[in-house]
Formats: sequence, structure tokens, C-alpha cells
Amino acid sequence: MATVEELKLRVRELENELIKCKQRRSSEEQVHGRAKIEKMSAEVVDSNPYSRLMALKRMGIVDNYEKIRSFAVAVVGVGGVGSVTAEMLARCGIGKPHQAGLSKVEAAEHTLRNINPDVVFETHNYNITTMDNFTHLMDRISNGGLEEGKPVDLVLSCVDNFEARMAINTACNELGQVWMESGVSENAVSGHIQLIIPGETACFACAPPLVVAASIDEKTLKKDGVCAASLPTTMGVVAGILVQNVLKYLLGFGTVSYYLGYNAMQDFFPTMAMKANPQCDDKHCRRQQEEYKSKETEHPKQEAVEEEEEVVVHEENEWGIELVSEVTEAELQAASGPEPDLPEGITIAYTIPEKEETSGQTVEETDRSLEELMAQMRKM
Amino acid sequence: MATVEELKLRVRELENELIKCKQRRSSEEQVHGRAKIEKMSAEVVDSNPYSRLMALKRMGIVDNYEKIRSFAVAVVGVGGVGSVTAEMLARCGIGKPHQAGLSKVEAAEHTLRNINPDVVFETHNYNITTMDNFTHLMDRISNGGLEEGKPVDLVLSCVDNFEARMAINTACNELGQVWMESGVSENAVSGHIQLIIPGETACFACAPPLVVAASIDEKTLKKDGVCAASLPTTMGVVAGILVQNVLKYLLGFGTVSYYLGYNAMQDFFPTMAMKANPQCDDKHCRRQQEEYKSKETEHPKQEAVEEEEEVVVHEENEWGIELVSEVTEAELQAASGPEPDLPEGITIAYTIPEKEETSGQTVEETDRSLEELMAQMRKM
Repeated sequence: MATVEELKLRVRELENELIKCKQRRSSEEQVHGRAKIEKMSAEVVDSNPYSRLMALKRMGIVDNYEKIRSFAVAVVGVGGVGSVTAEMLARCGIGKPHQAGLSKVEAAEHTLRNINPDVVFETHNYNITTMDNFTHLMDRISNGGLEEGKPVDLVLSCVDNFEARMAINTACNELGQVWMESGVSENAVSGHIQLIIPGETACFACAPPLVVAASIDEKTLKKDGVCAASLPTTMGVVAGILVQNVLKYLLGFGTVSYYLGYNAMQDFFPTMAMKANPQCDDKHCRRQQEEYKSKETEHPKQEAVEEEEEVVVHEENEWGIELVSEVTEAELQAASGPEPDLPEGITIAYTIPEKEETSGQTVEETDRSLEELMAQMRKM
Repeated sequence: MATVEELKLRVRELENELIKCKQRRSSEEQVHGRAKIEKMSAEVVDSNPYSRLMALKRMGIVDNYEKIRSFAVAVVGVGGVGSVTAEMLARCGIGKPHQAGLSKVEAAEHTLRNINPDVVFETHNYNITTMDNFTHLMDRISNGGLEEGKPVDLVLSCVDNFEARMAINTACNELGQVWMESGVSENAVSGHIQLIIPGETACFACAPPLVVAASIDEKTLKKDGVCAASLPTTMGVVAGILVQNVLKYLLGFGTVSYYLGYNAMQDFFPTMAMKANPQCDDKHCRRQQEEYKSKETEHPKQEAVEEEEEVVVHEENEWGIELVSEVTEAELQAASGPEPDLPEGITIAYTIPEKEETSGQTVEETDRSLEELMAQMRKM
């Protein structure tokens, strides 16, 4: 086993090698790209890439656009939505985005650095659902702010599977970290974004994931999961509404959406808000709810989520998986659990059976095993 | 002092970073770009960039996705919306996009050719509002299809000024060419797309341009037009809904939107449809209306625009410019002309005075000259 001294030596060696590698890269990179810009200005000259963003101040939309540079955002997942999301954040001049994801992370950083060299990038190329990486993710959320040691301002989930969403949810509940979830359906024609404020709004474990009904003929629904469809258009719209929500949340303008869906077949965009579930399976979510309640009692907030349309999720229910991903109305009606009262166009990935039934019994009532259902959830 | 665990974590981090640094250097040295692909396939292999698009067939969304290669689309304007639009078309595998616009056209072509070498590009770097260039634009719309001599399948307007929109409108009315208009407000927080089928739906000259109400305090409205604001997020959403509408129109799936607005402040997406105006100033529009009427009498269409929500534009009115671009409700109420019956969230760029008044008198009634008003329209 390595001693502390040996490890320290190895750290020093690696640090040196890394500095040399970065120096070589920066000298190679100087061919393309613009020079860094110290301060965001509203001056209207060709050399100023920020004039059209800073114009938002003169238009009275944003009080203090240059504040965007003081924020750090972690983007988890760099697939269709994540890569466009990170690019939009870079173009908007965000202070620092983290990117955690698999192999595409480096290519993304290179492209984005060329687009906006003023942004600080931090990339991690790993699967966040393994224990070590999960611990590292928690550490970077807590300490990876613009100033090292401070938390990031927002975490964005742009992952494409259920386990990764649950990992982000668990981390953010434990840390009390505000995050936004995004998703695109397997058939690429619906998607959504959702703001999750631990203790205040429903977390990813509080309720079955909400999805946008695609209103597609039932028999055309995909049954075997070889390769999900993907459309650059749907990815662009979902990334666009996600980063717009990020700007509104960070810079404090307009109305931040709690949930915004996109049904591309009908061009329908349902919205809603949902409170946290006091019976949530996640103990950190329940703790955050308690903390939020005491804070609310001390300093009542004017624009709390309670004032938004409230969705009734039957609190006496246990959780069980019934139906997955894009569900048709017929499937939803056939489900045994009670249905939450959702606005038109939003449905749930599965319903919740009555308390009398155990989750096991409920799963037996369907023709699918829990494993099959979970496997299908992963495709969501 | 650092513990063994902390040091091990640091070693892992540094090793990871060093690998990434080296990977980046080697990837930067490589020349990118893939070889052309003769035939779109649904095969799920890393080397096939079309598997996720072709999956739309298996999902039952699109009957014949590979047909996308048989279409040619002209993109006029390569600013914020136009460049993202052209990129999305290239990523979707369109057969051929034309791009007409100013200096950015070549740079865009180079980037897009790298993204998808299977697409045929044709670029024209000019201002379409001069007579020579307008004639050339007409010729390329009529003959620039995938097969030279055949017309393009669709024209997309991604321009940022009134004259250029009017030029496209004039050309498309004369040629009976279906086109889609797009626009983003000066304050960057609202936008829209619109499908124009000459003779069937309202053309750009049939009615005052429809814009999305931004619900912004009146006094914060921009009065002098130095530099319009621009947001990559709004551009991405508008380009996304535009190209999604293009795919639905060309490939025949979902519901094609006649008008879809985007209010980013409230995340509100109003829709509507509007019939052509029999008193339209454009004689080619009136001729197309006559032709459409006779065709309708011979072969009644099931899904004509008449079945959509209909907007009453008072047909006995002359045209006069009253208010421009983003207008507040107070301004709209103060306008002298009758207001068309529009859905919530959609308003008009100006209202139409009563027939008794001449346009001249109406303009005199406002504090602005026609030139000033036209100058402001150009910023729209």
C-alpha cells in the first residue's frame, strides 16, 4: 500500500505533467479563437461578442446581465440535450459550467472553449451511478463553484436514464441543491423540463416522473428498446427552454417554470407545479421538507410554489411501477393506481397503486416484471 | 494535513485530467469530417449517424424518414435563427439547403459541410432586396431544387428586417411558393413562426405582422434602435419549432402549425391560423386566392385552414401603420384602428385605421412620421 509520502510525490508529478500538457495545448490553440475579455461591456462594436446580451439591460428585461459571469452550473450528461445546453450556457457567458458524462465530454469542452474562452470549464468523464463517482459528484456540487470550495449555483440533469436521474436527485436532496431535470421521450417527439427545489417542490422520488403525452396511436408505441429516436429539433427546443429557465432563475427575470412540457406533434406546451410529497421515499427529501416548513413559518415567502396550481398526489399511497415512459390515455385509464389531477397534456410515467396493495402485488397484477419495467424506465 | 484517502482521490483526479488533456491534444491534431453515406440506414452502429433519425420509422412517428433527402429548402438569412435552422436541417439530413444572406454565409457552409457532408449546399451572399438579387432569388426558388430546374420544396425566412420579409413574400406570392416566416423580438424574449401557403393562409401583406405580446412594462420598451438584444436560448427555441414544423410539413406527420408564438417571460406558446385577405395589396396574393378558390370548388380539401380557429380581420379597411414590433396592451387599446380578434398572447405589429380615414391622416395622428415607423419596423 502506498504511503502518504509516496502519494504526495505522485500528486506533485502529475500536477507537473498536467501543467506541461496544458501549456502545449494553449500554445497550439492560439491559432483559432478570440482573446479573453476581462469585463462584459454593452459597447456596440464588432469585437464585442456581448453587446447583444448586454442589450437586455437597456431593454429592461434583465437588471444586471453581467452577473451571469458569477455563476457556476453543473451539466450532468452531454448527449443531445446536454451538449446543446452547455453550448447555450457558454454563448450566454456563464461563469463556469461543469460537465459530467461519458466519452463526449472532452470533445464538447474543446468546441465550447472555442465558442467562448471567457468561460471556465471543468469536465469529468465518468458514470455518476458508481459509488466512487457519486461521491466525487457530491464533492464537485458542494465545492466546484466559481470560487473553489463554494457550491455550484445550479445542477442540470441532461442524462438519458432513470438511475442517473435518481443519483442526481439523491445528491441534490442530501445537499439541498436546487436543480433542473430535462428529458426527451424515446420517440423524440415530446420532452420536458422541471425545476426541483429540495423540500419545496416534488423531487424525482416524490412522484412518478411526469412526461408529456404524445397522443400517438397506442399500437405504434415502441415495445423493444434497441435504439431510441432522436431529433435535433426536439433537442434544441428542450435545451432552449431549459437554459432560458436557467437564465430566468439565476438572473431573476420573467417567470421561472416549475414544469414545462413540449409535445412536438401538436405544438402543445403544458405547464404545472407540484409540491413535495411528505411520504417521499428519500429521507433527505423529507428532512428538506421539514427545514422548508420551519423557514416558511419564520419568513413566509410571497411567491411560494403553493400559490401555483397544485397537483393532488394521494399521500396515503405506496409506490409501485405500473406504466412507463410515454403512456397513452388508454394505458393510463387501465392502470390500477389513482391518477394525480394533472393539466391537459401531462401524464405520468407510471401510476401509484392503493395502499391496501403492496408494491409486489401490484407488479404481479401487470404482465411485466419489476425488472422489465425498470429496464424500460431507463430508456426514458 | 491530507489523509491517504484524500490523496488517493487527488491522484485519481489528476490522472483523469491528464488523460483528458492528452486526448484533447490528439483530437485537435486530427482533421475531422466523415465520409459521405450513400443511403440512409436504420442500422444501429456507431458509424451510422442516421440510426436515431431512422428510428422514427420504427416508432411509428414518420412513415418514410429517408424521404428527407429528396427535399431542398431555401434558408434566407443566416443570423441567430437562420444559422441554427440551417444546422438543424443539416443534422436532420435534408437533401439540399440554400442559404442566402450576408457575409456569414460562407462560414456557415463550411461548418455545416463538416457536420453533414451528405447534404448539398448552395450559398448566395447578397442583399435580397435589390432588384438584381431579387430576380436571382426568384430564379433560385423556381429552379434550385434538388434536381436543377425544379423548384425548392420550401422557403424559410430567417431575416431580421421588414423589407427582406416583404421581398420573400412578394417572390413567394408570385411563384405560389409555400414558405415559413420566423421572427424574434428586439428584446429577445419573444418570437414566432408562421406557415404561409399563398392563396390559402394570410400572406405577410394580408394583415399586420403578428407578434407575441411580451407582457413587459410599457416604460421599459426600447425607443431608440442602436442594438437589438439577442439570446441563444430564444434563437434555439424559435429555430427548433421552425425546423420541427418543416419536418412535419415535408414528411407529413403530426399537426403542422400555421402560427406558433413563444413568450419566454411566461413560457407561453400561443397558436392560431389566419385566412388570406381578399383585399390584400399584393395582386399575386389575390390571384393565388382566386386559384385556391377554384381548386377548392373542384376538389374540396378535408384539412383546409378554414377548419382552424378563424381570425376576423375587418376586410373593409385600408392599411396604415400605427404601432410597431412589440406592443403593449395599453398601446394596442390606444390605437385607432379596429383590432382583429386574436388569441391570448398574440398581438399585431400595428393596427388598421377605419376606411373613412386615409392612411395619410392616420399617420399624422401619431407623433411619428411614416419614415420613423418604417425604420422601427425594420428592427423587428
